[in-house]
Amino acid sequence: MHVNGTPYRTVWWDSERDLVRIIDQRKLPFAFEIEDLPTVASVAEAIRDMHVRGAGCIGATAGYGMQLAVREASRSSDFEASLRQGADSLVETRPTAVNLCWAVERQLKAIEDADDAESRWEIAARTARDIADEDAAACESIGRHGLEIIQRLAAAKPPGEPVRVLTHCNAGWLAFVDHGSATAPLYAAQRTGVPVHVWVDETRPRNQGARLTAWELGEEGVPHTVIADNVGGHLMQRGEVDLVITGTDRTTHTGDVANKIGTYLKALAARDNGVPFYVALPSSTFDWEITDGVGQIPIEERGGEEVSHLAGLGPDGTEIEVRLTPEGSPTANYAFDVTPARLVTGLITERGICEASREGVGALFPDRMRT
Amino acid sequence: MHVNGTPYRTVWWDSERDLVRIIDQRKLPFAFEIEDLPTVASVAEAIRDMHVRGAGCIGATAGYGMQLAVREASRSSDFEASLRQGADSLVETRPTAVNLCWAVERQLKAIEDADDAESRWEIAARTARDIADEDAAACESIGRHGLEIIQRLAAAKPPGEPVRVLTHCNAGWLAFVDHGSATAPLYAAQRTGVPVHVWVDETRPRNQGARLTAWELGEEGVPHTVIADNVGGHLMQRGEVDLVITGTDRTTHTGDVANKIGTYLKALAARDNGVPFYVALPSSTFDWEITDGVGQIPIEERGGEEVSHLAGLGPDGTEIEVRLTPEGSPTANYAFDVTPARLVTGLITERGICEASREGVGALFPDRMRT
Repeated sequence: MHVNGTPYRTVWWDSERDLVRIIDQRKLPFAFEIEDLPTVASVAEAIRDMHVRGAGCIGATAGYGMQLAVREASRSSDFEASLRQGADSLVETRPTAVNLCWAVERQLKAIEDADDAESRWEIAARTARDIADEDAAACESIGRHGLEIIQRLAAAKPPGEPVRVLTHCNAGWLAFVDHGSATAPLYAAQRTGVPVHVWVDETRPRNQGARLTAWELGEEGVPHTVIADNVGGHLMQRGEVDLVITGTDRTTHTGDVANKIGTYLKALAARDNGVPFYVALPSSTFDWEITDGVGQIPIEERGGEEVSHLAGLGPDGTEIEVRLTPEGSPTANYAFDVTPARLVTGLITERGICEASREGVGALFPDRMRT
Repeated sequence: MHVNGTPYRTVWWDSERDLVRIIDQRKLPFAFEIEDLPTVASVAEAIRDMHVRGAGCIGATAGYGMQLAVREASRSSDFEASLRQGADSLVETRPTAVNLCWAVERQLKAIEDADDAESRWEIAARTARDIADEDAAACESIGRHGLEIIQRLAAAKPPGEPVRVLTHCNAGWLAFVDHGSATAPLYAAQRTGVPVHVWVDETRPRNQGARLTAWELGEEGVPHTVIADNVGGHLMQRGEVDLVITGTDRTTHTGDVANKIGTYLKALAARDNGVPFYVALPSSTFDWEITDGVGQIPIEERGGEEVSHLAGLGPDGTEIEVRLTPEGSPTANYAFDVTPARLVTGLITERGICEASREGVGALFPDRMRT
């Protein structure tokens, strides 16, 4: 997608300088900075300290990190040990990120049978590129399928009137390699001339909506308005929302959706007001094992300082953190919640749209379903 | 209630210095400051610029403001004109505050028949005190009735286990003269030794929960935890909330509740998880005319800068404002939403608890109901 009119991915290989480059997402929207990652250690740090975030983006970054790990291992005295160490250092950065593990394992498996340094390097480079390209292609397909929903809603409106979409958190291209999941249909609509307007939940406590989604929509010229997380229900009640699309961190094959904290509240409001509630995801996000999202998905509890403190652009133009709560008032910080399948109108995947149920998911992914 | 162990009201008459004093709520929780209001103009400014806020607190402040208006008018050449000007200047500060108008009118009516300056002054002083005392007494009664709900829930738990109550915004003693509405049952529980733990929604965009409710609960020693507004649904889903109590800005006599934006989302989550959802209010908050809250209550839209910017305590110990959104991203700021009566378990009033319906309210307030 575009930044200042120039197309970017969130992570890519710089073949001239033989290193990984990323957009440092911590500084957005107040500064747009590209960071060089020349070593496995620098990639691990970037993942751990959230210079990059989002399932697809982390997976692709880890894929490129393994490309660096192969190079570093080839230069060491013990290839296997060094490679394993590099892989471990990446996996340990964010233990719950499914795509991270998956990308590292895919690289390890890919180079398993190569028997010289050159072919290992070539395989690792190709695999890293494949992981990134496949992520971008999956998101592009999600956009194509989701566009159909927006087109249908647009057809029912007077010409030129925007389809009003509410989204929560950032399931945008910044969370993937390109296009995004929840945002892909919005960008597809924008490209094909279907007018949309996006209500962007600010998404406390980390404000990924206000910071990232608003920024990337702005850079792509998509009309949008940032709102407090409290507002969505009111807007739906007043008929100001035609569609909700969110992303997901983990979705059971039975259709329960774990996503950023607060998603469940918007799903309840959508149901109460007859607003369709869709979840966009590449199928890599499906959990094929567990069946009860509310009961079985563990919810990460993060540090309370994300609630008691908030960073923003200070009067002097640099980012600073301010305290929001009285000294002595404890805070709690749950990162995700689970929206039960019954509240989800449908899942938008790279293969098409399906019902949020074992039957719906199974019909679209019979090859992935376990019996 | 207590601040640093000393009992305070939010507004009172200082009879030694013959002026009104208030707690300047803008500076809480980072600074506790008492402000002198020696003139009608200073009272008007304090109401307009939200040094005081909350229905009961505004009403009582306006009552004392009228006491000052009577003094100022008595010293002017044209008593009637001066009094009217003073009254108007108060009413104009926050045109939608029902209690403000009501307190000013009550004062005007009270002094109508007095025929000398001294008796006018005495009546105005007594009426101002009555308005404040009645507000405090109504809130105390709300606390007594609400306590019964908490006691019932406590009785069903192992001894010593706290009743976990979620509240939104600040319907605390800071919003009234004393005790508060939603908080009154909590303080009553605390005083009578019934253990409670309060989940405090931070309440974006103005963060009245994180700033005010957390502070006043802390000063009274009530165990509490501040959470992002997104969290309540998750907590209810996991069985971590026994009861929701909020306040209200305006409640139809049919039971629809206009309250701080986001209240509706919590009511939906409460309903979805079988958690009782109560609204606490002095009966002065009832609207006896309109019957359809969602359709008929106009929702105030405030400045977008309350969403794009947020104030907090900076690194140097002074309060500063930071920007949260990208430049060029519009924001929208709806101040209230309406929770339909069907989601409200009951209304806690100074006369007792009733169903959120015309029948329920009518049974408790037959004298106020219009046929």
